[in-house]
Amino acid sequence: MNERQRARRPGGRSARVGAQVHQAVTELISERGYGNFTVGEVAARAGVADSSVYRRWGSLETLLSEVALARLNAQSPMPDTGSLVGDLRTYAAQVAREITGPDGPAVLHLAFALSSSGQQGLQASEHLRAERTLQLQSMLDRARDRGEPALDAFDVLDHILAPMYIRVLFGMVPLTPDYIDGLVDRLL
Amino acid sequence: MNERQRARRPGGRSARVGAQVHQAVTELISERGYGNFTVGEVAARAGVADSSVYRRWGSLETLLSEVALARLNAQSPMPDTGSLVGDLRTYAAQVAREITGPDGPAVLHLAFALSSSGQQGLQASEHLRAERTLQLQSMLDRARDRGEPALDAFDVLDHILAPMYIRVLFGMVPLTPDYIDGLVDRLL
Repeated sequence: MNERQRARRPGGRSARVGAQVHQAVTELISERGYGNFTVGEVAARAGVADSSVYRRWGSLETLLSEVALARLNAQSPMPDTGSLVGDLRTYAAQVAREITGPDGPAVLHLAFALSSSGQQGLQASEHLRAERTLQLQSMLDRARDRGEPALDAFDVLDHILAPMYIRVLFGMVPLTPDYIDGLVDRLL
Repeated sequence: MNERQRARRPGGRSARVGAQVHQAVTELISERGYGNFTVGEVAARAGVADSSVYRRWGSLETLLSEVALARLNAQSPMPDTGSLVGDLRTYAAQVAREITGPDGPAVLHLAFALSSSGQQGLQASEHLRAERTLQLQSMLDRARDRGEPALDAFDVLDHILAPMYIRVLFGMVPLTPDYIDGLVDRLL
């Protein structure tokens, strides 16, 4: 590691504060729902100063968006199984596990609430979706480059993710493996 | 009209109270979001006594569910155009207009928030969905009886309604006529 890399590496304390703040936000969303807590309450639960939160994230909206994005990314790395059907089935199963888990509905409600919480929230939501869409499109483009059918990330949003999101939001769970594979097979 | 029908007809005052309370709930959801107001605040804005609201609806959850159901039904009667593609395109366009209107996102958030607001909310949400699913299935069964393809109401939920709901919740609007017709054509 050269000096430049060393200087840019997140410090141990900074990473620890980030993890504590993310955990505090996730807990408060589960307990109270989106919009029913303040930066001060996040900071108190995380054991850090309010000013640390404001300095690093700027606003509650930005912090919430980052938490949702980090959770979705951490729990759903994009698969690379060697086939499009394998990638999509694996990805869909990962998303299903994540959104039917204990914090899943909270993350979904957060992502959707952001879009309707003013201009800053809409931008944060667009940022979250843009990053996710790029990751998904990369997976689809690998398949196209192997000579498999070319799919658009928005087709996956509309016909694999949207049905699963809506069923979780309506409490129509569990999402069975047959149901999930059926969504993939219909799209292909 | 015979005496029995006359006796069962909702009185003018009862209907007026119902309309005032529904309007008050819709306004409070738009202004504050679901869960951020009380029965007392609904009653005050509607100009009725708290006890009138409790006597008629029992709880805030039941009232909120009824408001969402009434709005969805009033704004989306099931079409009967004589063809399945016509019915689905008309229905999808009606839903799109409704959920992209000023109160649309509030109604969607309400319907989804109900499912995660405890057992009573989940039951209210299931009741809302069951009634809507029956109406939709009747429209699909008419097409099947005419010799057109047999569709299941849950296919319409997954591949026409869910994508539109999710795009509205993410702020990915407008929903263009080409996009909406494309969802119908893909399902058929």
